[in-house]
Amino acid sequence: EVVPTCERYAVRRLPFARPGDRDVAFFERLMPGRVVTGEEVKPFNVDWLKSVRGCSQLVLKPQTTAEVSQVLRYCHERNLAVNPQGGNTGLVGGSVPVFDEIILSTALMNQIISFNRVSGILVCQAGCVLERLNEYLEEQGFIMPLDLGAKGSCHIGGNVATNAGGLRLLRYGSLRGTVLGLEVVLADGSALDCLGSLRKDNTGYDLKQLFIGSEGTLGVITAVSILCPQKPKAVNLAFLGCQSFAKVLETFTTCRVMLGEILSAYEFMDEKCMELVEGHLKLSRPVTGSPFYVLIETSGSNSTHDEEKLNNFLEQATASGLVIDGTVATDNKKIQAKLLGLFVFLCSWTAQMLWSLRERITEALTHDGYVYKYDISLPVAKLYDLVTDMRARLGHSAKNVVGYGHLGDGNLHLNITAESYSHSLLDAIEPFVYEWTARCSGSVSAEHGLGFKKKQFIEYSKPREAVALMRRFKAMLDPKGILNPYKTLPSAP
Amino acid sequence: EVVPTCERYAVRRLPFARPGDRDVAFFERLMPGRVVTGEEVKPFNVDWLKSVRGCSQLVLKPQTTAEVSQVLRYCHERNLAVNPQGGNTGLVGGSVPVFDEIILSTALMNQIISFNRVSGILVCQAGCVLERLNEYLEEQGFIMPLDLGAKGSCHIGGNVATNAGGLRLLRYGSLRGTVLGLEVVLADGSALDCLGSLRKDNTGYDLKQLFIGSEGTLGVITAVSILCPQKPKAVNLAFLGCQSFAKVLETFTTCRVMLGEILSAYEFMDEKCMELVEGHLKLSRPVTGSPFYVLIETSGSNSTHDEEKLNNFLEQATASGLVIDGTVATDNKKIQAKLLGLFVFLCSWTAQMLWSLRERITEALTHDGYVYKYDISLPVAKLYDLVTDMRARLGHSAKNVVGYGHLGDGNLHLNITAESYSHSLLDAIEPFVYEWTARCSGSVSAEHGLGFKKKQFIEYSKPREAVALMRRFKAMLDPKGILNPYKTLPSAP
Repeated sequence: EVVPTCERYAVRRLPFARPGDRDVAFFERLMPGRVVTGEEVKPFNVDWLKSVRGCSQLVLKPQTTAEVSQVLRYCHERNLAVNPQGGNTGLVGGSVPVFDEIILSTALMNQIISFNRVSGILVCQAGCVLERLNEYLEEQGFIMPLDLGAKGSCHIGGNVATNAGGLRLLRYGSLRGTVLGLEVVLADGSALDCLGSLRKDNTGYDLKQLFIGSEGTLGVITAVSILCPQKPKAVNLAFLGCQSFAKVLETFTTCRVMLGEILSAYEFMDEKCMELVEGHLKLSRPVTGSPFYVLIETSGSNSTHDEEKLNNFLEQATASGLVIDGTVATDNKKIQAKLLGLFVFLCSWTAQMLWSLRERITEALTHDGYVYKYDISLPVAKLYDLVTDMRARLGHSAKNVVGYGHLGDGNLHLNITAESYSHSLLDAIEPFVYEWTARCSGSVSAEHGLGFKKKQFIEYSKPREAVALMRRFKAMLDPKGILNPYKTLPSAP
Repeated sequence: EVVPTCERYAVRRLPFARPGDRDVAFFERLMPGRVVTGEEVKPFNVDWLKSVRGCSQLVLKPQTTAEVSQVLRYCHERNLAVNPQGGNTGLVGGSVPVFDEIILSTALMNQIISFNRVSGILVCQAGCVLERLNEYLEEQGFIMPLDLGAKGSCHIGGNVATNAGGLRLLRYGSLRGTVLGLEVVLADGSALDCLGSLRKDNTGYDLKQLFIGSEGTLGVITAVSILCPQKPKAVNLAFLGCQSFAKVLETFTTCRVMLGEILSAYEFMDEKCMELVEGHLKLSRPVTGSPFYVLIETSGSNSTHDEEKLNNFLEQATASGLVIDGTVATDNKKIQAKLLGLFVFLCSWTAQMLWSLRERITEALTHDGYVYKYDISLPVAKLYDLVTDMRARLGHSAKNVVGYGHLGDGNLHLNITAESYSHSLLDAIEPFVYEWTARCSGSVSAEHGLGFKKKQFIEYSKPREAVALMRRFKAMLDPKGILNPYKTLPSAP
C-alpha cells in the first residue's frame, strides 16, 4: 500500500470545500451512471509508478465539453478542488489528487471528431488513447507526430497538458508546433474555443500555448486539433553497441550528417538498463558486452534510398570503430544480407523487438524497487557525466543508477532504484541532481513536467521573475485555485 | 506622400503623454548619439508598402537589453507610448507608429551571442538581420529554420514578434516549435529571461509563447534562442506549369507522397503574378502559357537520391498530364540531361533565378499601384476560389486581382491593385473577403499578423471569448497600454 502523498510529504490541505452527498447527488443527475464512488475510486488515486497516492472519493466521467463546463461551473461556485486525469501515466505525480480533489477523468471523451486526408489534420476529444489514434491514422496513411512508451493508455489530452515529448520529437518537433488548436474549459466553467485546424493563423495571441504543458492547472483540455505527418513508407532500425559515451556522441554526429532527413530517433541506454530489461522482463537482446547501446530509427519515403543511406552510415561507423557490434531490423531482407559482413551477430530482429528494449526500460525499473526518476535536459556532451557522478556519490546506498534517453534531444532519463522509499536516499540525491543540472543551464524537467514531485525545484531552471509571472497567470485564470492544486507551481514561500 | 494613418482611418489618439525636450534630453544622456530626431525620423514613420504613416518625432536605438529596460521604465513612468520596430518590413502596419509613439528600433542590437555546432542552437540579439544570420550559419553547415522575401532587411526579433511563416515552414515547422527561448522587456521595464537554449524544457508555463506573434504589444523581444537545421547537402528546384488549379492540387498530393521528407517548399502563383513580375521587374521566366505555376523545392542529404526522387516525380507528373511544361535547377548537370526528354524548354536556370520569380511578386505588386493585401488561411481545395470570386466581384474597379502563396501550408496571398487608394474599392473588398474566409473557417491573417490594418477583423477568426481573454493578458502585462498601441487588438467597442 502506497503511503498517502499528504503524509509522506507533509502537505497542508488548502481550504477548499469538502465534497459531500449533496454534491454527489448533483453530479449523478448531471451524468447518471458516470459518477464513481467507493472502492472503484482506488486506482484513480494512485499513479502508475505507485509513488504517490491521493484520498479522493469521487471520480466523474463526462462525455462532452458541455458536461465538463457544468462540472467546473459547479465546483467553482462551491469552491471544490478538481484533479483532471487522462490515462494516469504521468511520472511526476501530476495526474492523481493529493487530498480529496474530485477526479475529472477524460476516459469517456474518446471520440474522433474529424480527420482531413489532404491537410493531415486530426481533431478529436481529449480522452482518445494515443495508440488508438495512431492505428486510426495508419489506416489512412498517416501517423501521430508523437510516440511514447505509455501509448497504450495515455490520452492525447494528457499528452498535450504535459507537453509530452517522446520518441518522435527529433523528427516531427514538439507539440508546440504540431498542436494547431485546443478546446479548453476554464476554472469557472467557461469554454474557450481555440480549436482551429489551420496550419497557420496569426490572428492575435496564441492562447492555446498557455494550456500546452500547464498540467491541468489553468484549464481542462477537452479537444485537440493536431497536424499529423504521412506514414513513412520505409522504417529501419539499428541497434548498436558503443565502447564509450564519447563514441555514442560521435556516432550521433556522424549519423545526423549521413542519415539527414530520414533520421527519426536516436536513443541511448547504458548496459545496466539492458541488464534490468533482460533480468526483470526476460527480453533477449541482439548485442551484449558494450557499456552503451544506441537505437537509431530511420523513416522515409523510399526504402532503397533509406537502406543505402543506413548501410553507408553503418559501414562508416564500423570502419572508424565507433560501433563494435549491432543488428538491423528492416522489412527488406536485402539489407540484412549486405550487413552480414559488418556485424558479428545478426539474427531476425523485428523493429518491435528492438523498440521494446528501449521502451520497456521504465517498466523494468519499477520491478527493481522504488524508483527515483529524473528527466533532465543537458548539453549532450555532459549528458552522461551526471549518471557517473551520481553513481559515485550514492555508492552502495542505491541499488542501481542507470541512464538512458533521447540523446538527439539532449534529454537524459536518470533513474535510481532502491528496495524502498527512503528520506535519506532522497536527501542524498536532491538537491544535488538539481544543482548539478542548474550549473550546466539544463532543465530539471525536460518532458515529464513538474506535477507534484518536482514543483518545488522550478527555480533551478526558471528565474524568480518568470515564476512570479506564472503565478499571475494562474491567479488570473483560476482565481480560487481549484484546478489541480498542489501541482506545477511551488507552494507559496 | 503617404496620407497619415490617423487621418486616413480617423483614429482617435489615446491620452498618452507627448514626448518633449525633457524626454529627448533624458534619452540623449542614456544613449548618446543614438537618439534620432528631425528629418531623419521620416523613413521610420512609413511602412515598406507605403500604405501607412505615423507622426513620430523620436527614434531610439538601444544596443543592450539594459538600455531597452531603462527606456521602457522611463516611458512607463511618464506614460509615453512606444512603437517597437525591427526591419520595418511588416505588411499590416504593425511596425510604424500611428501618432507620435516613440520608435524603439532594434537596428543596433545585432550581435550574435552564441552558436552551438553540436545542438544547432543559435542565440542572438533581436536586431540581427535574417539573411546575415543565415550566412553566418551556412559557414558552419547550418541554416535558419525560416526564410522569407524580406530576409535582406527583416530582423529576427521582428520575425518572432510577428510569428513569421515564410518559405521553409512546410519543412521546418513554425517558430512556435523552433524558437527555444526569448529575452523580453516588459512594459514596466522589467526584463524577463526565458532565453533557455534547450531542445526540451517542461518546467512551468511556456511564457515565451505569449510574446511570439504578439507584435510588440506585450513586451519587447531583445534576444532569441532558435534551433537551426543542418544545411542540406542537395537542393533542387522545379518550376512547373499547370493547366488548372485542380492540377496544382493534384500535383501537390503527388509530390508530397513521392518526394516525402525531402519536400521543402511548394509554392504556387497564377499567370497574372508572373506577368507582373515580368512587366515591372523585367525578370524572364522559363515557362509561359499556363494559368498556374508551381515552384517545388527539395532539400536533402544525398544528391543522387534526391534527384532520383525528383525525376521519378516529374516523370509521373508529366505522364499523367498534371504538368505540361517546366524546368529544373540543380547543382548537378546529370539530372538536367535526363530531364531533357520530358520538358520542351530547358535552359540553365539557377535556383536563385527561379526563387526570384516567386519572392519578388510582392515587390512587383508595389510597382502596379496601391496594393490591397490579404493573407488568408483556407482549406487548400478552396484556396483559389476566393481569387476567382473576388475578380468577378470587383470587375474593372480593380486593376489586377492576383493569387499566389504557400499552398503546402494552405496559405493564400490575395492581392488587389488599383491606381491609388480608394475607400469605395476597400468597401467592395472588405468585409466580403473576411466573411468569405470565415465561412470556410479560415484565418484572416495566416502569417502577416493583425498590426494596425487587420485588427478590427479579428473576430472573423477568433471567438469573442478568446478576444476578451487576450485583452485581459494585455491589461495584465501592459496596464497603461503603452506598448505598440492601436495594434493587434481591436479598438474598444
